[in-house]
Order: sequence, then structure tokens, then C-alpha cells
Amino acid sequence: MGGKKEIEGNFHHIAFRDGALVLLDQRKLPREEVYLECRTEDEAAEAIKTMVVRGAPAIGIAAGYGMALAAARHAGSGAGAQREALEGAARVLGATRPTAVNLFWAIEKMMAHVDKSASRPEALAEELLRLAEAMHEEDAAVCRRIGDLGAALLPEGSSVLTHCNAGALATGGYGTAGGVIRSGFRDGRVREVFVDETRPFLQGARLTAWELSRDGIPVVLITDNMAAHCMRLGKIGAIVVGADRVAANGDVANKIGTYGLAVLAREHGVPFYVAAPTSTIDMEAKGGADIPIEERPEEEVRSFGGALVAPEDVRVFNPAFDVTPARFVDALVTERGLVRLADGESLGSILG
Amino acid sequence: MGGKKEIEGNFHHIAFRDGALVLLDQRKLPREEVYLECRTEDEAAEAIKTMVVRGAPAIGIAAGYGMALAAARHAGSGAGAQREALEGAARVLGATRPTAVNLFWAIEKMMAHVDKSASRPEALAEELLRLAEAMHEEDAAVCRRIGDLGAALLPEGSSVLTHCNAGALATGGYGTAGGVIRSGFRDGRVREVFVDETRPFLQGARLTAWELSRDGIPVVLITDNMAAHCMRLGKIGAIVVGADRVAANGDVANKIGTYGLAVLAREHGVPFYVAAPTSTIDMEAKGGADIPIEERPEEEVRSFGGALVAPEDVRVFNPAFDVTPARFVDALVTERGLVRLADGESLGSILG
Repeated sequence: MGGKKEIEGNFHHIAFRDGALVLLDQRKLPREEVYLECRTEDEAAEAIKTMVVRGAPAIGIAAGYGMALAAARHAGSGAGAQREALEGAARVLGATRPTAVNLFWAIEKMMAHVDKSASRPEALAEELLRLAEAMHEEDAAVCRRIGDLGAALLPEGSSVLTHCNAGALATGGYGTAGGVIRSGFRDGRVREVFVDETRPFLQGARLTAWELSRDGIPVVLITDNMAAHCMRLGKIGAIVVGADRVAANGDVANKIGTYGLAVLAREHGVPFYVAAPTSTIDMEAKGGADIPIEERPEEEVRSFGGALVAPEDVRVFNPAFDVTPARFVDALVTERGLVRLADGESLGSILG
Repeated sequence: MGGKKEIEGNFHHIAFRDGALVLLDQRKLPREEVYLECRTEDEAAEAIKTMVVRGAPAIGIAAGYGMALAAARHAGSGAGAQREALEGAARVLGATRPTAVNLFWAIEKMMAHVDKSASRPEALAEELLRLAEAMHEEDAAVCRRIGDLGAALLPEGSSVLTHCNAGALATGGYGTAGGVIRSGFRDGRVREVFVDETRPFLQGARLTAWELSRDGIPVVLITDNMAAHCMRLGKIGAIVVGADRVAANGDVANKIGTYGLAVLAREHGVPFYVAAPTSTIDMEAKGGADIPIEERPEEEVRSFGGALVAPEDVRVFNPAFDVTPARFVDALVTERGLVRLADGESLGSILG
């Protein structure tokens, strides 16, 4: 049992230092810990697009810093030029990844401040950096709250399965699903964690296995197609995943493979929990059908690490996310509490 | 539509030439077509164990040739020594892969001939080689029959999903699930085939995508965790897979991930078909619980295409197969006809 030692989950994978956004290059984990500096909003956008940084809350935070970079770089050109640069940055950053709503939430929050601030360019740039830092810290705090609330759902000594990476690396720190696991391990409620490798980008194998192991949490790595067998063998007590966007009716867009797990969980009587901050809820999306699903390059499936693993001319379908209907979600764990939606109910009440 | 041209599916991946069993090294596909010669029963066993050749019917055929190799090599040492060598070969070959029953079926068939033959060593060796060749040819013929029977289940222009490789490469030729697809494409019933990549060994990406593409059959490659999303989008009209062992009650052991697909198929109203020769039926196994499930080396999951993709000390669970309960199987397609078992019924009738 985990005992009561504090579980950190803090890898400084997003930081702002010496005028630059410094990102741990998650594409290179677990083999190399390389940090990449973004000095312009375009470099920040490129880092988000190419998945140097990924995970809905984390890309929101990176986009916030990207906006701050734009404000600082154009502070010397006058208020009009700075405003124009910020609008351009909002467009460029907003065009990087279509599914995670935290990206748009963060950009809008920055632009809302721009709209209402009367500060001069240098001061505005400083304010936007403070705002990005506050969002970053707030996200880590939100994750700790989510972690504690979610952990309370788990019986003592549970074996939990998670998919993709909704851990410290996907957030401002600690993690959403990863937070539930960390708090659960600290409290003796989580005994071990089955981690789906999560093809094609292998966030489970590369990131979740890495960050949980670093915190001393016992991990069992499986391929995605083993989850059903593990459930049938009774090895899985609960499933906890994150979310990239939650629609008003509670439908959840998350990493491809999540929906299949939810169906399998229901078949086996395994509770299925989604852990996500309220910034992931998109009230404009009435249901899952309103959430755009990003399709990524075919190469991600045909090859790995430069090695071709399929005929080079074979056609590929590579959706990065899927939608889990609300009826498969036993609880949505947010920083404001647990939500169990009845059919036809809306998430509006918890945001109001 | 496929039209009426004949679909070959014949890759000469198993052959016996100049006193050697010649195997296409399936571990190197699709990048290299390398052939490996086995001149002893131990070399044949090693090739089966390390998956140079894989697929339940194919390893049965390879084991048959392995027995023939043993008989030939020891023909000069007298009847007693030859008999001893054959018993040793049966043990070594039988210890290679525990789940596929065709392996044991083929070895027993060879030993049954040894038991009843009164021939002298040289003649016996010749008889066993003829028997192995006959089993090889018979398997290809059985696959064509399975293919035609299974294809008739599919509506015109179907989009079919398959898992792993139950194609020409897994059999004496043409394939079981692959046979259904080939006959279906020839008859205009199969329009395109979604191929699960099938981690960890990637038989779908490396083998099925390769052999179907070579026959001009349109393939869409997906990762295993995309199948549920594809079903939800209505992209999958039917699922066809092979089997490594079918229990008397109709439970099916097949490549890990099959069971999850079967549950998802039921949830989405997609018919789920298992194509397998009657040699795959094990009447000694009353149900799936009686089928031993092979666990393979952890390295297969920790690495991808030869590159490490997870922390090197992370624990792994790597079951190679799972069991799909008979109630999820809409039809078992055998060379003797289609079987739909009601609860509590046995497959004994079709073998009797």
C-alpha cells in the first residue's frame, strides 16, 4: 500500500525562463530528457502542433505562454502593432490542434484580458505573462483537487487501468487521471496501474509508464488490445482517463481507444471515470458530434522511430481522438466535484 | 467491386525443397523477403518458437515437415533409433507454442502414421514427407472452401475488419479469415478491409496489409484501439478473424485483442465471424478456460520495431491470445460448413 508519503508528479516540463517558454520534448521520452526553447509565438505553436507538448491542459498552458511571448516581442512596436500581433498569435496557436478545448479556453482568457486592460504595451506584456503563470499554477492546484476527489471513488488496494497520458506531463503538474492515481496511491487506494501503451504515439508506454515509475507507483504495461482480456481476468478494478473536450451533454472526446475501453468496462462491470478540469467542458458543443476529431499524419501508424512497420503505400486512417457517449461515464471528476449526468441532463449547472 | 479474377494468396512461404523445410521469415516482412532453411527438427522447432512461421494452420504444417525431417535424418540408424528420434521431435516441436492446437493435431497425425506403418526406415521417412505435403495441400484446399462459405455471409460491397493475420501466410495458402476476404473480394462482396495493426508483433500491419495489398485488395490500416471508433462511425460491416484453438463449447482462442473486438462488435450490431478449419477444434478442451494461453517475452511490448519505447525496467503483461466466449461468435466458418452454436451445444456433431 502506498502509505502517506507525498507523491510529487512535478517534472517542470513547462517553464518560462529568461524570456523563453522551455518545454520538455515529450517526443523523445523516455530515452532522452531534452528541453526545447520557444522564443516566439510561432515556435510555441510549432511545439504544440508537433506534440513536443501535448495533453489538453498542458497545451492550454503552453498556448497561454505563447500569447505572452507575442505580447513581449511586440511591446516595443506600439499598442496597435502589439494588438495585431496578439490577434495573429491567437490564430496561429488556435490552428495547431483542433480537439482539445483548453487551447481555445486559454487563448480566449488571454484575449479577454487584452480587451479589458488599459495598460501600455510593456505593462500588458508583463500582465499576460503573470496571467499565463497563474493559469499554470492554477491547473496544478486543480489537478490536486481532482486527484483527491477521484481517489475517494476507489476501494482500497485497487488495480486501475489508464489510457494515454493524462498525467503530470499532460497538465500543469500532478495530472488529471494521473492525479487520481497519485492521490490514490498516496492513500493506499491504488495498488498498481495497468498502462495501455496507446498507439500510435505511445503516450502510455513512453510517458505514463515513465512518470508513474518515477514516483514509485507500480506499473504494468500492456498493449491496447490486451485491456479487454485483463478485464475478463478480473485484473482491472476501475478505469480512469482524462479528456480533451467534454460536451454539454457529458459526451467525452479523449485519445483514440478511450471509447472502446468504456464499452468494455460496461460489459465487465468495471467503473469508468473521466477526470478533467472544468476548462475542458465546452458548453458550445451540445454533444460529441459537435466536437471536431483531429486526423493525424498516416506516417504515425505506418512507421515508428523511422522504421517502417507496414507496406509504405498502404492507406491509413489515423483519428487522434474518439467520443465516449455520456452514458458510459460513471463519473466525471472535476475540481468542483463529481458529476454523474442522467440522460438529457447538461453540465451547465456545474459551470454556473 | 472485385470482379471475377482469381485471387491467388499463394506466397510459397512454406516449402520443402532439396531435403530442407524452406520458410519465408515472417519476422522480416514487409521490408525484406528472406527465406530460411531448416535442415533438422530442432531448427524447425526454433523457427516455430521464434515466429519465423506463425498462424495456427501454418505451424501445424511446419511441424509436420519437422517430423519428416527427423524421420529422414535418422533413417540410416535403424528403426529403433528412428522411432526414438521421432518421439523426441514430437516433444521438441510440441513444446514450441502452447495455444495453437493444429500443432499437436499435426504431430499426432504424423505419429499415428508411424504407429501403424510397417515400412522400413527409408520408406517411412518418405511416407512422412508425403503425409506432410498432403496436409499442406489439404490445408490450402480447406481454406478455399472456408473462404467461399464465409464470403457468402457478406452482403455485396462490404467493408470488413480483420485482426492479426489469418491469411495465406498463416495457413497452407489462401487463408482462413484471409480466405473469406479473398473469396469475398473475388465475388464483389468485400470492397475494402480494415486491418488492425495487431500489437505487439504487428502481424496486421506487417503481414495482412502486405499480403492483401499484393492481391490488389484495398486495405485501410488502423491501430488496434481505433476499431471501436470505426464501428461507431459505421465503417465496419463485419469482422472476420481466424482461431488458434476452438473449444468443444465453441469458445475461441485467438490473437490477443480478438475478444475485445467481439464485445465491441456485439455492442454495434456488427456480425462477428470466426474462420477456422476443423483441425483447430479441440474436443478435449470443454471451454475456453481449458485452453492454455501463451505469455510471450516482455521485450515484445517494451520495444517497437526494434526500438525501446518504454522505460526498460517497466513490468509488462504479454499474453499472446485471449478467449472469446461462444456467445459472441455469430458463425464459425469451417470447411464442413457454418456453425452457430446455441448455449450449451457442443461442436462434437460437426466432427462426428
